[in-house]
Amino acid sequence: MDFSLSEEQQLLLESLDEILDQYASPAYVAETDREHRQPVEFKRAMQEAGFLSLGIPEEYGGTPVDMVTMCLIGERVASRGLNLGYATEILQVLDILEFGSPEQRESVLGILQDGGVPFALAFTEPQAGSDSSAMKTTAEHRDGKVRFNGTKTLITNAVDTKYLLTMAVNPDAEDPRRAISMYLVPTDAPGIEISPISKMCWHTADSSEIYYNDVEVDESCLVGVKGEGFKQLMKNFELERIMTATQSLGLAEAAFKDAAEYAATRVQFGKPIGSFQLVQEKLTDMAIKIENMKNFIYHSASMVDNGTLDRKQAAMCKRYCSMAAFEVCDDALQIHGGIGVTEGVRIERLWRDARGHRFGGGTDEIMVHVVGRQIVKEHTK
Amino acid sequence: MDFSLSEEQQLLLESLDEILDQYASPAYVAETDREHRQPVEFKRAMQEAGFLSLGIPEEYGGTPVDMVTMCLIGERVASRGLNLGYATEILQVLDILEFGSPEQRESVLGILQDGGVPFALAFTEPQAGSDSSAMKTTAEHRDGKVRFNGTKTLITNAVDTKYLLTMAVNPDAEDPRRAISMYLVPTDAPGIEISPISKMCWHTADSSEIYYNDVEVDESCLVGVKGEGFKQLMKNFELERIMTATQSLGLAEAAFKDAAEYAATRVQFGKPIGSFQLVQEKLTDMAIKIENMKNFIYHSASMVDNGTLDRKQAAMCKRYCSMAAFEVCDDALQIHGGIGVTEGVRIERLWRDARGHRFGGGTDEIMVHVVGRQIVKEHTK
Amino acid sequence: MDFSLSEEQQLLLESLDEILDQYASPAYVAETDREHRQPVEFKRAMQEAGFLSLGIPEEYGGTPVDMVTMCLIGERVASRGLNLGYATEILQVLDILEFGSPEQRESVLGILQDGGVPFALAFTEPQAGSDSSAMKTTAEHRDGKVRFNGTKTLITNAVDTKYLLTMAVNPDAEDPRRAISMYLVPTDAPGIEISPISKMCWHTADSSEIYYNDVEVDESCLVGVKGEGFKQLMKNFELERIMTATQSLGLAEAAFKDAAEYAATRVQFGKPIGSFQLVQEKLTDMAIKIENMKNFIYHSASMVDNGTLDRKQAAMCKRYCSMAAFEVCDDALQIHGGIGVTEGVRIERLWRDARGHRFGGGTDEIMVHVVGRQIVKEHTK
Amino acid sequence: MDFSLSEEQQLLLESLDEILDQYASPAYVAETDREHRQPVEFKRAMQEAGFLSLGIPEEYGGTPVDMVTMCLIGERVASRGLNLGYATEILQVLDILEFGSPEQRESVLGILQDGGVPFALAFTEPQAGSDSSAMKTTAEHRDGKVRFNGTKTLITNAVDTKYLLTMAVNPDAEDPRRAISMYLVPTDAPGIEISPISKMCWHTADSSEIYYNDVEVDESCLVGVKGEGFKQLMKNFELERIMTATQSLGLAEAAFKDAAEYAATRVQFGKPIGSFQLVQEKLTDMAIKIENMKNFIYHSASMVDNGTLDRKQAAMCKRYCSMAAFEVCDDALQIHGGIGVTEGVRIERLWRDARGHRFGGGTDEIMVHVVGRQIVKEHTK
Repeated sequence: MDFSLSEEQQLLLESLDEILDQYASPAYVAETDREHRQPVEFKRAMQEAGFLSLGIPEEYGGTPVDMVTMCLIGERVASRGLNLGYATEILQVLDILEFGSPEQRESVLGILQDGGVPFALAFTEPQAGSDSSAMKTTAEHRDGKVRFNGTKTLITNAVDTKYLLTMAVNPDAEDPRRAISMYLVPTDAPGIEISPISKMCWHTADSSEIYYNDVEVDESCLVGVKGEGFKQLMKNFELERIMTATQSLGLAEAAFKDAAEYAATRVQFGKPIGSFQLVQEKLTDMAIKIENMKNFIYHSASMVDNGTLDRKQAAMCKRYCSMAAFEVCDDALQIHGGIGVTEGVRIERLWRDARGHRFGGGTDEIMVHVVGRQIVKEHTK
Repeated sequence: MDFSLSEEQQLLLESLDEILDQYASPAYVAETDREHRQPVEFKRAMQEAGFLSLGIPEEYGGTPVDMVTMCLIGERVASRGLNLGYATEILQVLDILEFGSPEQRESVLGILQDGGVPFALAFTEPQAGSDSSAMKTTAEHRDGKVRFNGTKTLITNAVDTKYLLTMAVNPDAEDPRRAISMYLVPTDAPGIEISPISKMCWHTADSSEIYYNDVEVDESCLVGVKGEGFKQLMKNFELERIMTATQSLGLAEAAFKDAAEYAATRVQFGKPIGSFQLVQEKLTDMAIKIENMKNFIYHSASMVDNGTLDRKQAAMCKRYCSMAAFEVCDDALQIHGGIGVTEGVRIERLWRDARGHRFGGGTDEIMVHVVGRQIVKEHTK
Repeated sequence: MDFSLSEEQQLLLESLDEILDQYASPAYVAETDREHRQPVEFKRAMQEAGFLSLGIPEEYGGTPVDMVTMCLIGERVASRGLNLGYATEILQVLDILEFGSPEQRESVLGILQDGGVPFALAFTEPQAGSDSSAMKTTAEHRDGKVRFNGTKTLITNAVDTKYLLTMAVNPDAEDPRRAISMYLVPTDAPGIEISPISKMCWHTADSSEIYYNDVEVDESCLVGVKGEGFKQLMKNFELERIMTATQSLGLAEAAFKDAAEYAATRVQFGKPIGSFQLVQEKLTDMAIKIENMKNFIYHSASMVDNGTLDRKQAAMCKRYCSMAAFEVCDDALQIHGGIGVTEGVRIERLWRDARGHRFGGGTDEIMVHVVGRQIVKEHTK
Repeated sequence: MDFSLSEEQQLLLESLDEILDQYASPAYVAETDREHRQPVEFKRAMQEAGFLSLGIPEEYGGTPVDMVTMCLIGERVASRGLNLGYATEILQVLDILEFGSPEQRESVLGILQDGGVPFALAFTEPQAGSDSSAMKTTAEHRDGKVRFNGTKTLITNAVDTKYLLTMAVNPDAEDPRRAISMYLVPTDAPGIEISPISKMCWHTADSSEIYYNDVEVDESCLVGVKGEGFKQLMKNFELERIMTATQSLGLAEAAFKDAAEYAATRVQFGKPIGSFQLVQEKLTDMAIKIENMKNFIYHSASMVDNGTLDRKQAAMCKRYCSMAAFEVCDDALQIHGGIGVTEGVRIERLWRDARGHRFGGGTDEIMVHVVGRQIVKEHTK
C-alpha cells in the first residue's frame, strides 16, 4: 500500500495552486456566490492552463489522467471554497464522447474548450426524483423528428448552457426498463421554457424548472441507442458520485481551516477558544472526518482506475462524504459563534453549499437503498 | 402532576389562532423574511388584541399571566414559522419596569403599546461574546453626563428601535465585578453610528455593529444602580433562555408539520415516501424531540411560576431545545429532498432560523459551561 | 400544568426510601446480579409494606393508585440500580384480573402476595420475535382438554414461577387475526421442558427456551375468550412499555449519580475530572436526557390516567427512554475510565442492564414501525 | 496511490488463514473467553509458523516486516473474534530490544518464542490513570539494589507472565520530568502481591492490582537510562495505539459478518430482516465505518513505515477506531434482537470486548487532549 502522491501529481497540484491563488481568491469566490453566477474567469484560466483537457481521451485532443488525479484536482479546487468548480463538465462530456455522434462530440468539446458548460442534465421531474421509473416526459419519434413533452425540475445549469441532455420516455415502449432514451436538445429549441428557481445554496449553478411544450427536434439529437438512455447515463454515474464526494471533502477542508484558525486566534476568557476542550473535541472530530473522506475517495478512485469500482463502494463514499462534510461545516459554524452566520464570513456559505450535497447526486437515503440491499445479497447463502 | 391546559389558556390560544390565521399566513411570514423586515402588521394586531400587555404588571396597565401561559403563546406563534414574533419585547420591558426610572418605564411601555421594539440590547462586543469580563465599551460619568466610547456587534434590532440598552464599563471601577452598568441610550444620540450586518438567518430582526464615538447623554440614562448592570441583566436572563427555547420548539413544530405532510403526499416508487422506514424513523425521532422540548419548556416555565427555576435548568432547557429543534429542521429538510433547498418552500427558512438559536441567548457550549460545573458542585461532598 | 407531586405521593416515596435503604443496599443488589437470582427478600419487604397491592382493584384486596404513582415507585426502585424490581408482576396480574376466571385470579393474586412471580409470559418464539403472525406453537382443543406443541424462547422468569401465560395458535382457526388464544399453563405440566439461557444482562430474571411436547391441560386454562388472546395481551401492553421506560430511567439515574460523584472525586492532572469540559459535556447531556425521560414518562402516565394514552405515545416513550438511558449509562461508564469495566463497580452492571431494555418490550426499531406509520396516517388528508 | 496488497502480504494472509481455521475456531475462541484464559494453543501455533518472529530485527533471529503487514495480520486475527490475539507481545518486546540489556533481551525473546507473554506493563496506578505525573510508586536506588514501593492497578496479563515492566518514580529526582524510570522486575520477587480483578470484557487477558511492598531487586533490572523511562515508553506508544485500533477493526469486522449473515437469514414479517430499511441503514453505516477504519489504520501504518507518523495521527486513528468499532458492534447487537444478549452468540462478546478498547491504550477523551491541542498549535500564526 502506498498513500503518497506521484511526482507528476505533485507538480500538477503546484501548478494548480498558482491558478487558484490568482483566479480563485476568497473575495472572487464570495463574489460569484453573491452574484449567483458561474466562476467564468476561473474556468477560462483552468482551460488555458490545460486542466479542462484532463481526463479527455487523446483522440479528442485531451490528456488522459487517472481518476485519482482528477479527484486530487477536484479536492484542491473545492478546498478554496469553490463549489462545483471543477470536473462536472469533464465527466459530462465523457458521456457524449462515449455514446454521442461525431457532431454531438464536437459540439460539447467545443463548449468545454471555451470554459463553458457543455449541457445541463435534464433528468429529475416533479414526480420523479429518486424514482426514475416515474419519469413522464415523453419523446415521440415520428417522421425523422422527435417531439418532447413534459416537465423537468431542479435542473442544474440550464440557464448557462446551450444544450439539455434530456432523458425522456418512449410512450410506445413495450419493456418499461428499455423505455428511456437520451437526447441532446438545444436549449433554444421552440417550445422549451426555462423557469429559474432560487436556492439557499449552490448559487454559482443556476437551477430551473423546464417545460417542454411540443418541442420538435431532428432525430439526430438521440444520443447512443434508443431505449438504452438510462443504462448509458448510469455508465459514469459512479464517477460522478465520487466527484461529488470530492466536492464535499474540499468544502470541509476549507471549513476546517477557517475554524482552526479562528479557534487559534479568537480570545475569550483570557485565552484562545482553541484551549477549551469543547472546541478541541470539535476540531479533533473534524480532522478525523477529513482523514476518512480523503481515504474513502482515493480508495474509491483507485478502484475506478483498476476497474474494480462497484455501485456499493461509490454509494458508500457518497453517503459518508456528504454527511461528514456537512457535519464538519456545522461544527465549524458553531466554533465561529454568532459571527459565523453573518454574510462575508466564508463558513456561512460553505455550510449552505455542503448541505446541498446531501441531495445532489442522490440523497443520503438512496445510498442506503443501494448499499444495504447489496450487503444483504452478498451475505445470502 | 397535570399536563393539561386550563380553560383560560385554551381560550387564549383559540383567540390567538384567529389572529395568526389572519395576520400570520405562510405568505406573509415568507414575505417578512424575504424583505428582511419586522412583522409589524402582525405585531400591531397582537397589540390590539391585548397580547402585548400579557405579563406586564397591572400597575403598568398590563395583565399578569404566568410563564407557562407566556410560553404557550410564544410556541403557538413560532409554530406558524414566525421566528422571534412574540415575547422578546415583553421580557425586555420587564427589565426596565423593574430597574428603570418612571420616565424610562413610560418610554418603553409606550413603544410596546405601539407594537414597536422598545430597545435593542447592546451587550456583545467584537472581543467579548460569551465572555462579559472582556467588555471594553466605557461609560464615564462626569458633570451630570455619561460619555460612551466603544463598539458593540451583532446587536439585534438596533435599526428598528429608538433606544440602545447599553451595557458599559466604568473605567474607574475598583471591583471588576461591579464595573458594568446599564444605560438606556437614545439611538439618535450624536456619535452613535449603526452599521447593519447581513445574516443568513433571522431576517426579520436586523443585526448591527454599533460604534459609540464620544456619545454624551444625560446621567438620567442610567438604569437601576451603578455597577449592578450585569446583575440586573441576569435577573430575567433565565426567562429569556426559556423563551428562546420556546421559539426553537415552535419552528420545529412547523418543520415537523411540513415534513409529515410532504411524506404523506409525495409519491416515489409507487407509494408515499412516508411508507419508507428511513422516513418513518426521521418522523418518529422528530416527534420524540418535540415531545421532549414541550415538556422541558413547560416544566421549566412552571418552575419560574413557583419560584424554583435555577440557572442550570434554564441552561439545560436552552441547550436541548436549540440543538433538538435544529435536528428536527434538518431532518425535515432532508425529507423534502432537493425541493427543500429552493426558496419559497418554508422548510428552508425554518432550517436557517433554527440554526441561529444555537448561538442566540448563549451558545450550546456556554450552556455546558453553566450546567456541567453546577452538577459537579452538587455532587462534591 | 403542574409538575409537582401530591402529598400522598411524597409520603409514599418517603416510606419506600426506608424499605430501599434497608432491603436494597448496593451490596444486596450486586449480590442478586452476581448470583443470578430474584431479589426475593426485597420483594417480600415490599409486599409486607403493601407496595405490591398498589394498582390492584379494591375488590381483589388491592389499593388502586394512578399510573403516575406506579411509575414514581418504579423509578425510585430502579434508581437504586435494581432492574425489574417493581411493577412487572403487578401489571401481569392485571391482565388475569381482567380476563381470567375466578380461579385464575385467585392463583396469581396469591403468588403476588407471597412476593413471587405470578407467571412468565410465553410469547416469543425462535422464528417469531417482533412478528407475532409467525407464531407456531399450537393449542388444540379436544375433549375438554387443550394440547400444546411448540417452542418458546427468551422467556423471562419461567424458572422462577408456577405458570406460563402461554400464547398459542389454534391450528383450525379460519381468520388468522383471531387464531391466537391465551392460556395459563402450570409450569409443571407433563411435557413442558424448560432450558435456561445465560444472558449478559438482566441476571435477576432468568431466561429460558421452553419446549411444549404434547402438553395436555384442562380447558379451564384458557384465559378470556378463545381467539382474542392477542387483543387481550395488547390491552395493557402500553402500560408495560411505559413501565419498561421507567426501569430505564431509574437505571440512568443511578448511573448519573455514580458518574457525577466519581467526576467530583477522581483527581487527574491536579483537579477533579469534573473540571474538564469533556466530562462536563457528558454530565450535562446525561442530566438533559434524564429530565426528558422523566417528563416523557410522567406525561405518558398521566395520559393513562385520563384515558388518552395511545400506542404512538407509549412507543415513542419506550423508544426514547430505552435509547437515552443506555446512552447515559455508556457515558457514565466512560467517565469511570478503565475502572468502570471491573466487576464490583456498579456502573458496569447498569450499563449491561440498560442495554437489555433496547430489546425487551419491543426493539427500538419496532417502535419506529408503530410510530412512523401512525404519524404518516395522521398527516394524510 | 495504491491500496492493494503485495504478493508477499497475500501469501502471508493465506497461510495465516490456515492457522486460524485450525486453531482459532469460533468454539475455541468462545472457550477462552468463557474460561478467562489466554489462547495458548493458538499462540503456540502462531509461534511455530513463524508469525511471532515477524517485526523482530534479524539480529535477534526475527524477520523484519513493515507496520502495514503487522496490521494486516493483527486485523485478520481479530476478525476471527479473537481480541488481543496478536502483536501486543511483539510490540512489547521491541521496547526491550531497543532499550534493554543483553540479558533482558534474551529473557523476553525466549518467552516470546514459547508463545508466552514476555511481561506485563505496570504503569497505571489507582490515582494515576491518564495522568502519569501523579505516579507514586517509588524506586529507590541504594547499594546496587532498587527498592520498590507502591500500588499499580488494572495491569494486564500480570498473572500470566514472569516479569512486570515497572514504571516507577525516583523520590530524589530534581526534575519531575526526568523522574520516571523503567524496570524489568520478576513477578516472583519477594514483596510483590498480585490481586486479580474481574472484568466484564477482555476475559482472555487477566487484570490485576499489584502491590509492591519493599520489593528489592538487583539494579540490573533497570531498562535503559535512569530518568528516561517515560520517554522510552512513549517511543513505541504510537505503534501500540495503531495496533489497538487494528484490534478494534477486526472485532468490528467479525460483528459485521455476524450481523449481515443474520440479517440475510432471519425472517420476520415474511421476509429476511435485511429487507427492512432500518436494518439496511445499520449495515450500510457499519460497512462505511469498517472502510474508514481500514483506511485510517493502513494510512497510519504506512506513515510508520516511511517515518512520518506523529502523535496526532496515531491518536486520531485510535479515537476513531475505538469509537467506530463499538458503534458497529452495538448495531450488530441490535440487529440480532434479544438473541444477541444470550451467551453463546458471538456478538455479545465482541460488543463487550470492543467497549474495552475505548479505555485501553488511552481513553477517547485523552485522544482529544492530544489531537486538539496539536491542531490549534499548527494553526497559530
